[in-house]
Amino acid sequence: MAIVEVTIVPLGTKSTSLSKYVADCHKVLQSEKKIKYQLTPMGTIIEGDLDVILQAIRKMHEVPFKKGAFRVSTTIRIDDRRDKVSTMKDKVDSVINKF
Amino acid sequence: MAIVEVTIVPLGTKSTSLSKYVADCHKVLQSEKKIKYQLTPMGTIIEGDLDVILQAIRKMHEVPFKKGAFRVSTTIRIDDRRDKVSTMKDKVDSVINKF
Amino acid sequence: MAIVEVTIVPLGTKSTSLSKYVADCHKVLQSEKKIKYQLTPMGTIIEGDLDVILQAIRKMHEVPFKKGAFRVSTTIRIDDRRDKVSTMKDKVDSVINKF
Amino acid sequence: MAIVEVTIVPLGTKSTSLSKYVADCHKVLQSEKKIKYQLTPMGTIIEGDLDVILQAIRKMHEVPFKKGAFRVSTTIRIDDRRDKVSTMKDKVDSVINKF
Repeated sequence: MAIVEVTIVPLGTKSTSLSKYVADCHKVLQSEKKIKYQLTPMGTIIEGDLDVILQAIRKMHEVPFKKGAFRVSTTIRIDDRRDKVSTMKDKVDSVINKF
Repeated sequence: MAIVEVTIVPLGTKSTSLSKYVADCHKVLQSEKKIKYQLTPMGTIIEGDLDVILQAIRKMHEVPFKKGAFRVSTTIRIDDRRDKVSTMKDKVDSVINKF
Repeated sequence: MAIVEVTIVPLGTKSTSLSKYVADCHKVLQSEKKIKYQLTPMGTIIEGDLDVILQAIRKMHEVPFKKGAFRVSTTIRIDDRRDKVSTMKDKVDSVINKF
Repeated sequence: MAIVEVTIVPLGTKSTSLSKYVADCHKVLQSEKKIKYQLTPMGTIIEGDLDVILQAIRKMHEVPFKKGAFRVSTTIRIDDRRDKVSTMKDKVDSVINKF
């Protein structure tokens, strides 16, 4: 199981507001049953099987093009740990417990 | 006002567990009065004056070295919008309102 | 055609030196016939069909695990432009021509 | 000495072409005497004293605003190694020597 952060940004859109693109990208996630995710002020963090997540991100990356964008910048950060199971909640709790 | 995500990772530590480094980096933030921040499973998101934030991150970047690390990888993503004030909460609400 | 930057970093390795992991990740790219790539001091930049690139990166991400790492941090940045064909060389030339 | 990659992208510009912004950001670097840098297809990699580099990046981040942008996304990746001196060239050579 991996934790992955993704940020998808269309470039060359006339407006500085991008929330409508983000909302539509999230519709892809809402139809995925096997992954958990949370929206943050800087992107979306997804937890689940790495291949399932990457396939979902591949679909999300197409969304701004379908909405008219001609250039999309997508940033993906994968944290893949295999010595123990670590959920999104585990990672945050592990830090908080050390405060 | 800017919103900035930072992830600070020591490399070449013997353990795969990095939460103690993250917790100590957060102590820097706890002493900053002028910025807001939130911990996520993939980093820390900070809201406030860009120069104040960057100075705080500069201090955070030193923390793993003080704890014995010899190599630190720090990733910073700045979202700086000047046509309107947009807080961390505003950004998330703006997406949710379009679901 | 897309241009994609990837950086693959094992965490919790005893040594701060990571070049042997990078070299082995590159062996995956050397066997790919349909993509171009260049090594930089901060990662690898790949040019080609986006799905072919992402499949290659997926294989590269496994390399540090095969070499004994238990946690791998992989960062992928996709620049996907569909209004015109833009190679790695075109992008750099386009900037240089404006100096 | 650190090696830092920076990518500065204005959002909400009408055109998908961003090279004129990159070229103007580079003018900041051309006036810096104490750092080395190289342009890549995905950003700029800079080598030198970390504080000098961060000050230069802070200036570069303002460039798109001066050219009329209202929102700028800047990504900074710092690789700071203190157990040995490692230049941009050293890092690439170290990988190539293991092929």
